[in-house]
Amino acid sequence: GEVTIGGGQCVVMAGPGAIESRRQLDQIAAALVQRRVRVLSGNILPQYSNPYGFQGLGEEGLQMLRETAERHGLVTISEVVDPAHLPLLVQYVDLIRVGPRHMKDYGFLRALARQPKPLILTRDPATTIEEALISADYLLAEGNPHVILCEAGIRTFETHTRLTLDLSVPAAIRRHSHLPVVVDPCRAAGRRDRVLPLSRAALASGIDGLLLDLHNDPDHALSDGAQALTLEQFHQLMDQFDQLAPIVERWG
Amino acid sequence: GEVTIGGGQCVVMAGPGAIESRRQLDQIAAALVQRRVRVLSGNILPQYSNPYGFQGLGEEGLQMLRETAERHGLVTISEVVDPAHLPLLVQYVDLIRVGPRHMKDYGFLRALARQPKPLILTRDPATTIEEALISADYLLAEGNPHVILCEAGIRTFETHTRLTLDLSVPAAIRRHSHLPVVVDPCRAAGRRDRVLPLSRAALASGIDGLLLDLHNDPDHALSDGAQALTLEQFHQLMDQFDQLAPIVERWG
Amino acid sequence: GEVTIGGGQCVVMAGPGAIESRRQLDQIAAALVQRRVRVLSGNILPQYSNPYGFQGLGEEGLQMLRETAERHGLVTISEVVDPAHLPLLVQYVDLIRVGPRHMKDYGFLRALARQPKPLILTRDPATTIEEALISADYLLAEGNPHVILCEAGIRTFETHTRLTLDLSVPAAIRRHSHLPVVVDPCRAAGRRDRVLPLSRAALASGIDGLLLDLHNDPDHALSDGAQALTLEQFHQLMDQFDQLAPIVERWG
Amino acid sequence: GEVTIGGGQCVVMAGPGAIESRRQLDQIAAALVQRRVRVLSGNILPQYSNPYGFQGLGEEGLQMLRETAERHGLVTISEVVDPAHLPLLVQYVDLIRVGPRHMKDYGFLRALARQPKPLILTRDPATTIEEALISADYLLAEGNPHVILCEAGIRTFETHTRLTLDLSVPAAIRRHSHLPVVVDPCRAAGRRDRVLPLSRAALASGIDGLLLDLHNDPDHALSDGAQALTLEQFHQLMDQFDQLAPIVERWG
Repeated sequence: GEVTIGGGQCVVMAGPGAIESRRQLDQIAAALVQRRVRVLSGNILPQYSNPYGFQGLGEEGLQMLRETAERHGLVTISEVVDPAHLPLLVQYVDLIRVGPRHMKDYGFLRALARQPKPLILTRDPATTIEEALISADYLLAEGNPHVILCEAGIRTFETHTRLTLDLSVPAAIRRHSHLPVVVDPCRAAGRRDRVLPLSRAALASGIDGLLLDLHNDPDHALSDGAQALTLEQFHQLMDQFDQLAPIVERWG
Repeated sequence: GEVTIGGGQCVVMAGPGAIESRRQLDQIAAALVQRRVRVLSGNILPQYSNPYGFQGLGEEGLQMLRETAERHGLVTISEVVDPAHLPLLVQYVDLIRVGPRHMKDYGFLRALARQPKPLILTRDPATTIEEALISADYLLAEGNPHVILCEAGIRTFETHTRLTLDLSVPAAIRRHSHLPVVVDPCRAAGRRDRVLPLSRAALASGIDGLLLDLHNDPDHALSDGAQALTLEQFHQLMDQFDQLAPIVERWG
Repeated sequence: GEVTIGGGQCVVMAGPGAIESRRQLDQIAAALVQRRVRVLSGNILPQYSNPYGFQGLGEEGLQMLRETAERHGLVTISEVVDPAHLPLLVQYVDLIRVGPRHMKDYGFLRALARQPKPLILTRDPATTIEEALISADYLLAEGNPHVILCEAGIRTFETHTRLTLDLSVPAAIRRHSHLPVVVDPCRAAGRRDRVLPLSRAALASGIDGLLLDLHNDPDHALSDGAQALTLEQFHQLMDQFDQLAPIVERWG
Repeated sequence: GEVTIGGGQCVVMAGPGAIESRRQLDQIAAALVQRRVRVLSGNILPQYSNPYGFQGLGEEGLQMLRETAERHGLVTISEVVDPAHLPLLVQYVDLIRVGPRHMKDYGFLRALARQPKPLILTRDPATTIEEALISADYLLAEGNPHVILCEAGIRTFETHTRLTLDLSVPAAIRRHSHLPVVVDPCRAAGRRDRVLPLSRAALASGIDGLLLDLHNDPDHALSDGAQALTLEQFHQLMDQFDQLAPIVERWG
C-alpha cells in the first residue's frame, strides 16, 4: 500500500480530529474505501483543548488507528500534538503531521527530521510563507527529504471562519520550492458548512493533497466536531472531487 | 444584447484598468468575442493613483468604451472611481461598479441607488461581510433592486499578494442574502502570476461572475499593469474556464 | 481664539459623535472650558449608520455647534461624512476632518484641498502609512498646506476592540513627513472602557493631538454612544493628562 | 534579592537576545545596576534562527548569566526556546519565559507548571486573549501559581514594525484575570528606533513590567540585533521612565 504525494494527483486524507473508538474509525474507514481514498487520519490528542476537557486516548488510540487501517488497506497519518508522543507516532503511523504550534520549535524540528517517516508541516496562522520555508529547511537540512507543506489558513480580521484560507499560496510556494503542498480546509474554516466550496476551490487552484476532518457523528464528537464533515457531506464532496480532479490534474 | 448575472452561470467581465486608447479597447474586445465573453470593462480613472500620475481620459474614454462595445456586440461596465463622474457613467455604460472606497459613503450610495443601472458593490478590504450587506441595504432601500456584491480580497499580514482573497465568502453571503456574488482576483492578487489559480478556485467555489483586468500590453499599461492578464494568459484561463464551468454550474 | 496643532503641545479636541441638541453641546462645551480644552468637535451625520437609523441634524446642527463654540470661546471641528456637506462645513467650522472612507477618494481630496480650512486626514483602517501619505500629498499638491494626519486604528484579528491602535505609527510618520499627527482612541477602541489607557499611551508615545468622543449621556446617545466618554471619565482623563503632558512635551 | 511583579510598580527586565560572552553580559549588567534595574535577561538560543545561523552557547551561557547576575546582585530571566532546555533553566535562572511558539504546546505547559520557578507566558501573535488565558489556565491548573502574561504584539498587515503592539490588551486582561501583565516592545517592533515611544506608551497604559532587548553592541549582535536597544538608548529610556513611572504607578 503505497501513496505518493506530489506526483501530479491530489491525494485525499481524511479522518476524525481525535480518535474516540474502534467503531468510529471503522465507519470512517469504510467510507474512505468506498470512495477510493487511501489515507486515514486520526490524532491521540484534540487540536484545541482546555485543561478540563477530553485529553485523548494515548497509545491505545494509535493501536486502533493502525488496526483499522490494516483491516481496510489504508495508510495512516497522525498529528504530533505533543512532542512527547513522537516515538509512539513513529512506531504506529505512516505519515506524521506537524501542527502549526510546533512550526518554529526548531529543536523539535530537528528531532522530527531524524526519524524516517514523511512529514507534513503545517504553516502557523501568523507566519509568512518565508518563515514556513525556513522551518522546512530545518527538516531538510537534518536529513529528512520527505517534507510536505500544509496550508490551513491565516489569522485575519474575518470571524465568519476561524482562519482565512489563502489559495494563492500553493502557487506562491511552487515558485520558491519543489515541496508538495496540501490544504486543510476544515481547520481553516472551523465550521463544516464552508468546507465543500473551500475544498473545490483548493482542488481547482492546483494542490497535491487535501486533509479533511471526517466524523461518523460530528455533533457528538468529543472534540473539534464543528469543523468535521458528516459522512453524507463527504460523499457529496467526493462526487464533486471525482468530476473536477481529472480535469485539474491535467494542468499540472 | 442582454446579460444576466445570478442566473446560474458564471459571467466573465474583462477589460483594462484604465481606458487608454481606441486601439487598446479594440484588441481586448476582439479577444473577448473570440472566447464568447460578453462584458467589456474599462475605467476613466486609474484605481490607484498619485497626484503626479496618469489621470485618465474622462468622457472621451467612455465614448471609446461604448463605441468599441457596440462594434463588437458587448455590454459595458465601468467603475465610478470619482463620484462626480456618476452622471457620465449612467449615460454611457450598462453596469456601474462601486469601488471599495465608496462602500461606506452612504450619501453617495443613495445617489447610486436612484439611478437605473445595475450596481456591483465591491467590499472594502477592511470591512466585514455584515458591513457590506448594510451598504447593499442602502442601495436596495432606496429602490435599486439590481445589486451584485463583489469580493476583491481583504487586507491581511500576507504581502506576497496585495490582498488575500477569501473564497469562503460567496457561500457565507448566500446564507444571509439572495444577492449574486462576483469575484475580482486581479485586484486581490495585485500580480498577474497568481490570477489563474485564484480564478479557477473562485469558479470552483461557486460564484456568479468573474471580473478580470485584461490588457493588450500590460507591461506598458499607464496604470495598474502589474495585475492585468496578458491576452495569452486570458486565452489560457478561458481554456480552463470552459472545461470547469459546465461542471461547477451544475452544482448550483 | 487661535489653536496651533503641531507646535509641541498635545491639543485635545472633544465632542459628541453626532450633534443632537443645543443642550447636549452646551453641557459638553462647559466641561471642555473647565479643563482648558479649546476645540469642540461634532458631526451632522453619524459615523456608522444604517438606512433606517438616525440621519443627523444637517445644517441646523452646524449652527448649534458654531453658536455653542462662540458662546464658550471654543474652536470647532467637524467630520465631512458626506462630501455633499463640504460647502456647509467650510462655512461653519474651523477645522475639517476627513474620515477614513474618503481617504482614497482622490477627486474629493482635490475639492478639500481647494478650500481654505485646515484638514485632519484619518487613515483608513486597511491602508498602509505610505497610502495615507499619498493621500496627504493630494491635499498638499493642490495647495492646502494645513494637513494633519490622524491615526484611529487598523483592522486586525482582535475583536475585543473595534480596531487596533498602533502607537508606533506617530514615530514612523515623523520619519517620513513633517505633518502633525493626532490620535483618535475612541474610534479605535469602539468602547469607552479602553479609552483612558489608550489615551495615556498615545500621549506618552508623543503626539500632536488627541480626538475624543465625549457625550453628556452616552448610554442614550442617538449614535456611536458605546465609544463616547462620560463627563466623569473625561475629567478623570484630563486629571491624568494634566500630569503627563508637561513631562512628555519636554521630550519633543 | 527579591523582585515582585504585580505589586503596583512597573518592573524593568533587560538583556541580550542571545547570550554571547561574559564581557557582553558584564557591560549590560553594569548599565542595569546604574539605573536600578533589577532583572537581567538572556537566552541560550536565538529567538529567530535558521539551520545555518548562530545556535547559542548552551549551558555555558546559563552559567555566565548566573555568575554575572550574582556579581551584580541581579535576578535572572531566560526564555525556554527549546523545551529540552527546561531542566537547565530551572537549575540556573529565577524566572522562566515561555515564548509564543509554546503557548499552545499543552503537554509542555504541564511540564512548565510542575517546576517551581515563576513563568512569563508570551501570547502568540496570532492568538486571541481568550486563548492566552486558556494557556495560563493550564499552568495554574497544574499547580504553578506564579504566572505572568506577556504582550509582544500581534501579526497585522502593517510591515513597518514586525508585529503590532496592542496597548489596550493590559486593561482587557485585567477585566478577566488577576494575573500581572508585562509588555515586550522590542520583539513587537523588531527595530530599535520604535522602542522608546512604544515603551513610554506601554508604561503609561498601566502595566506590571517591561521586557527590553539590550545589547552592548547591537550592530554586531550574533542574533536579533535589529530590535535591541543600544546602551545609550537604554539610558535615555530610563531617564524618561524615571519621570513617568512615579506618576503612572499612582493610578494603579
